Amino acid sequence: MTTRTDGRDVNQLRDIQIETDYLIHPEGSVLITVGRTKVICNATIEDRVPPFLRGQGKGWITAEYSMLPRATESRTQREASKGKVTGRTMEIQRLIGRALRSVVDLESIGEKTIWIDCDVIQADGGTRTTSITGAFVALSIALGKLYNEKGLPVFPVREYLAATSVGIVENIGVVLDLNYEEDSTASVDMNIVQTSSGEYVELQGTGEESTFSKKQLLELLEFGEIGIQQLMDVQRAALGELATKIGDKGQVTE
Amino acid sequence: MTTRTDGRDVNQLRDIQIETDYLIHPEGSVLITVGRTKVICNATIEDRVPPFLRGQGKGWITAEYSMLPRATESRTQREASKGKVTGRTMEIQRLIGRALRSVVDLESIGEKTIWIDCDVIQADGGTRTTSITGAFVALSIALGKLYNEKGLPVFPVREYLAATSVGIVENIGVVLDLNYEEDSTASVDMNIVQTSSGEYVELQGTGEESTFSKKQLLELLEFGEIGIQQLMDVQRAALGELATKIGDKGQVTE
Amino acid sequence: MTTRTDGRDVNQLRDIQIETDYLIHPEGSVLITVGRTKVICNATIEDRVPPFLRGQGKGWITAEYSMLPRATESRTQREASKGKVTGRTMEIQRLIGRALRSVVDLESIGEKTIWIDCDVIQADGGTRTTSITGAFVALSIALGKLYNEKGLPVFPVREYLAATSVGIVENIGVVLDLNYEEDSTASVDMNIVQTSSGEYVELQGTGEESTFSKKQLLELLEFGEIGIQQLMDVQRAALGELATKIGDKGQVTE
Amino acid sequence: MTTRTDGRDVNQLRDIQIETDYLIHPEGSVLITVGRTKVICNATIEDRVPPFLRGQGKGWITAEYSMLPRATESRTQREASKGKVTGRTMEIQRLIGRALRSVVDLESIGEKTIWIDCDVIQADGGTRTTSITGAFVALSIALGKLYNEKGLPVFPVREYLAATSVGIVENIGVVLDLNYEEDSTASVDMNIVQTSSGEYVELQGTGEESTFSKKQLLELLEFGEIGIQQLMDVQRAALGELATKIGDKGQVTE
Amino acid sequence: MTTRTDGRDVNQLRDIQIETDYLIHPEGSVLITVGRTKVICNATIEDRVPPFLRGQGKGWITAEYSMLPRATESRTQREASKGKVTGRTMEIQRLIGRALRSVVDLESIGEKTIWIDCDVIQADGGTRTTSITGAFVALSIALGKLYNEKGLPVFPVREYLAATSVGIVENIGVVLDLNYEEDSTASVDMNIVQTSSGEYVELQGTGEESTFSKKQLLELLEFGEIGIQQLMDVQRAALGELATKIGDKGQVTE
Amino acid sequence: MTTRTDGRDVNQLRDIQIETDYLIHPEGSVLITVGRTKVICNATIEDRVPPFLRGQGKGWITAEYSMLPRATESRTQREASKGKVTGRTMEIQRLIGRALRSVVDLESIGEKTIWIDCDVIQADGGTRTTSITGAFVALSIALGKLYNEKGLPVFPVREYLAATSVGIVENIGVVLDLNYEEDSTASVDMNIVQTSSGEYVELQGTGEESTFSKKQLLELLEFGEIGIQQLMDVQRAALGELATKIGDKGQVTE
Repeated sequence: MTTRTDGRDVNQLRDIQIETDYLIHPEGSVLITVGRTKVICNATIEDRVPPFLRGQGKGWITAEYSMLPRATESRTQREASKGKVTGRTMEIQRLIGRALRSVVDLESIGEKTIWIDCDVIQADGGTRTTSITGAFVALSIALGKLYNEKGLPVFPVREYLAATSVGIVENIGVVLDLNYEEDSTASVDMNIVQTSSGEYVELQGTGEESTFSKKQLLELLEFGEIGIQQLMDVQRAALGELATKIGDKGQVTE
Repeated sequence: MTTRTDGRDVNQLRDIQIETDYLIHPEGSVLITVGRTKVICNATIEDRVPPFLRGQGKGWITAEYSMLPRATESRTQREASKGKVTGRTMEIQRLIGRALRSVVDLESIGEKTIWIDCDVIQADGGTRTTSITGAFVALSIALGKLYNEKGLPVFPVREYLAATSVGIVENIGVVLDLNYEEDSTASVDMNIVQTSSGEYVELQGTGEESTFSKKQLLELLEFGEIGIQQLMDVQRAALGELATKIGDKGQVTE
Repeated sequence: MTTRTDGRDVNQLRDIQIETDYLIHPEGSVLITVGRTKVICNATIEDRVPPFLRGQGKGWITAEYSMLPRATESRTQREASKGKVTGRTMEIQRLIGRALRSVVDLESIGEKTIWIDCDVIQADGGTRTTSITGAFVALSIALGKLYNEKGLPVFPVREYLAATSVGIVENIGVVLDLNYEEDSTASVDMNIVQTSSGEYVELQGTGEESTFSKKQLLELLEFGEIGIQQLMDVQRAALGELATKIGDKGQVTE
Repeated sequence: MTTRTDGRDVNQLRDIQIETDYLIHPEGSVLITVGRTKVICNATIEDRVPPFLRGQGKGWITAEYSMLPRATESRTQREASKGKVTGRTMEIQRLIGRALRSVVDLESIGEKTIWIDCDVIQADGGTRTTSITGAFVALSIALGKLYNEKGLPVFPVREYLAATSVGIVENIGVVLDLNYEEDSTASVDMNIVQTSSGEYVELQGTGEESTFSKKQLLELLEFGEIGIQQLMDVQRAALGELATKIGDKGQVTE
Repeated sequence: MTTRTDGRDVNQLRDIQIETDYLIHPEGSVLITVGRTKVICNATIEDRVPPFLRGQGKGWITAEYSMLPRATESRTQREASKGKVTGRTMEIQRLIGRALRSVVDLESIGEKTIWIDCDVIQADGGTRTTSITGAFVALSIALGKLYNEKGLPVFPVREYLAATSVGIVENIGVVLDLNYEEDSTASVDMNIVQTSSGEYVELQGTGEESTFSKKQLLELLEFGEIGIQQLMDVQRAALGELATKIGDKGQVTE
Repeated sequence: MTTRTDGRDVNQLRDIQIETDYLIHPEGSVLITVGRTKVICNATIEDRVPPFLRGQGKGWITAEYSMLPRATESRTQREASKGKVTGRTMEIQRLIGRALRSVVDLESIGEKTIWIDCDVIQADGGTRTTSITGAFVALSIALGKLYNEKGLPVFPVREYLAATSVGIVENIGVVLDLNYEEDSTASVDMNIVQTSSGEYVELQGTGEESTFSKKQLLELLEFGEIGIQQLMDVQRAALGELATKIGDKGQVTE
């Protein structure tokens, strides 16, 4: 068996840092670094909801995702210059929004929209899962301010949420937290979004010109759980005092 | 436990019909009906590949998906009138293309693009999985023509591919092949794309404002396999003589 | 004199079928087949009018037209993918809307918009005239429902409306109801929209790199009338009971 | 019978002026004034043809049409600001191009595109027919330069081409050359594009919420011929020496 | 030292004409000619302001700029056809609006928007400064009507405003009012917008692949003042009676 | 006289930091911080030039500018979501490109395009001048690599280039390096781009609803020079060894 190009164990995450209060203007602002992938995650609270929700007394969370042109090895054309958002970007921003909404009590925040902006300034694989993990922290900080200002009865974040990628790489097998080089050559790629109670929120497994068996699926899920637990430890540390307010339903269990 | 609104068993598919040679112009043309969902799937063979593949001697499969404005209960604005394709459409057409590419030997067809057009003329849930199941047949017919005309050494479709949805509906539990009403109220929705050898090509499970456990995941997968097998029986019948040419690696097994 | 490629007499229409209640969701839904040309025509009733009509107590009819990418011999790029509607499409949808408005009593229906969607699933010439002929039936069915539900004092469709094409083909002369092959080689092409009282609603004659005399014009019009009468017979049959409600001002006369 | 609001006879054109060499840069440049309608028509010769004509040794004529925002009574939003061309504009530019192509020997000019730009600086009805009449002169001047420079064997314009509008106005009946006020209230509006030999190139009659009989059609055509003859006299005068080069096939005859 | 290609002195403007009441519909309409550059400047009064100003009782001035495709030596693609406005156009229209707003008492006109449309029908350098100079006259005429109709207490135009270009041309040095040929070869190009009291409103100096010293800057400004004074004389003559209403704060002084 | 809100002297810059090698992928990458304004400036070398320059053996520099949605106090809509770039952005990116081209020997780099991407992650006034100052460093680093790899005979950057803003603030007068609060209330705003030899590259002075005299202009320029000199000291320090390669024509002199 070959070893991973960056020397990691197959079930080892890359180094993770979450820097809070990264920018001064947003209600929640985080710079998350996973290996060489760096994403700025900002949360904005807006005092209204999209038209389809008006009058229901309920909030909404929506996400936008973008990459700086030179986040990547070779320069990628700006979507603003192209005049449209690519399919990949739309898929990612729908995923981020959906995932975050699953752990927030939208009724409790009233008619507000939380905008999540994930801007990848440097990319080395896993930008969408890194965005979710970082966005969870930015969102929690923003909702923490709302909670204090409005004196909400319960903290609106029900439990922790983090995301990682797992995959199957030739000559190595199942690996956790793929970097760009691994991701490019993986036959199977799976993004897992999980809560602190071990429940799945999103599971997106894809065999690009390849397939995977149920046995492989179970191994992939097992590696994912290992990563998710560690990511949540970093989230808790970054949130500081706020960490305990989040309704932790329990440990990651099977 | 409540029963399903249309009286089906929890692990029962809706009625399925696949009409081949539906339109006269396309190289492969199918009208697939799953319950009240109807999709026209056409395959077009084009004698060139996208720029990123030129000169590699390899083919490509790409898909486009659309709904007639009144495929839906209330009229949906045309994407051509809006001047842009929605995120949902992009996500679906990327999924269809990716899924089909996983069972075709792209090297064997040379520098050709197969365009798959899935046009939903009536929608009642499951339009993306129905599109994949129907598109597989249209694609196989088109590649059958190429195989005969060009005298290809092997039939370029390696194995069968079909897709279905499973989900978790309140008061009922896990169900197979959700119609629109069930889909709207399901707490978990999962699309499964599987091959005839039982391997997964895509697994997309989503809890919109909800989550699911590993135990539930395994039940969802089990129901999916039941559906996939039956869908492939209908595909085989529709393909007639061509059915045996597709390299069936084996039965759906765990 | 040469005969037509499909063996028809010069003043003979192709086979026509109009299938009503084609789809389940629209208020009026028709599949019209003229030779090998097939168009799905759906009518939707919306409870408001465009801004320029608000407050006038009057209804509106607007049409959209589209072709499936493989309605045509070779694949046509989707307008949604291009991000804009072509000039040809705009011209056709303006024509359909204008024609239908001429036989409907817009005051009597109140502030409602009837959306007409004509989706060509297979094209072999005459798609715009086939769309008008089919859309008239879909519209009448939708207005029939409104008439019954609202107890309107008079049926809002004043008279029958149908459309056909005539043209001048080299070595043959004036012909009725051109198929795609004839249309491509015709020196003159004319679309005629006429009512059951024999009045013209639209007359669009074009000599692409060619011209036509007044004598030829009169022959073209004569052939058009023959076709229009027969199309209206098929419309009446398709409408069943509703057929007699339409205020037939009289016979096609000169 | 009421008289026309501007005192004209029913079969009387408005005052017409055609000023040639209006701008310095274009190969052909004309300011045409019909009553209060003013259009700048410029012709540009480009040394290549659109992709669909390459390698056929044949030329092409294409037209673009626009109105200054304050050509109209109230300000119209600029199409450049809207980011798209309206259906009306597309219809008009397709009409202008088609009409001009019908009288030009496109083989004789080789692989060149003549761009016709019609910019309405003041509008008072009839802008599309005025554009065609003026554009014919700008085109002839540009082709005159090509004819001289390249020593073409025959002058590429086969015969004269002009356009006018006729219509049916309540309490007056059939009228020639409608101004904006008449056009807004006309029940029938018809644009006629005719050649100097009396042949029709385009005939577009429309009853907006109205219809017309064959008898009325013949009266409309008769009025049109009167106008077309007079417009061609003005064209001949404007073209000066060049006027005799245009292959006048004969007089306007029935 | 070489002389200018058109024989002018280095500090000499080209011939200037301002024709008022050029078009019939706009509230203010001017054709301004500076040498061979011709611009139609129209002013439209609209009874509302953009959203960001609503409820403040204050007016707004906004400008749009466009060139006919053959205003230029070779044909420029229409922005409406491209579906977007270029950066150059946006820069110019922002400049025109900003400049005009600086001399108008926006409070006094109430919640109205004055739309300025500058359409260049022929270009030979200096189109943006010519647009400002002409637009000032069109705007003053439109505001003159408002002043009379509404009986405003003071005329809302505080002082005169005109614009010209100056530049540095190789072998000649500093020149006033560059034509296109000079502009193309100038190493430094500066647009100056100044009021009748000699104050600057805009100063935009650019060295494209070049630079300029403070000494050169002072010479450029001196030439600009000479031109501005003469342009204001032409503006006063064009405005006739209205000329004296404009609150002339004084002479152009240093 | 009032003092500045942040306590600075009128001719004092904010704190400046330039961090080089900020990101790993770009050929030149810088994070520049001026007060609370933070911009990532990346330079990319592409091996081809835009169409209008092909075959001339000469390079090109082009710039793109963007702001993160929450770079600002309240969230700004993403240009990619709007589907178009605003006029303000276009103006700024044209300015950055033009300024940088003025100090680079484009012939010496051959047919290459240097893309400059300026992404503002936090905005507090002066984003365009900060972008130019930072982009100069990123560009120099990228060209340093080219110089070494290709063994260019001379270093292609002729001299230093930096930019700052000056303005006139009520009750204070002329100030250097305006922050957002000052910029919002300034009656005159001027951006100055200057080289190390004291020459001007761009001078853009604007009185929004205000004006300025020549005397004020001279004071503004004097303050600008003070700031530019200090900015160049920070640039030199950031460039390290490379600093001496840049052809410093001399000191900032009048």
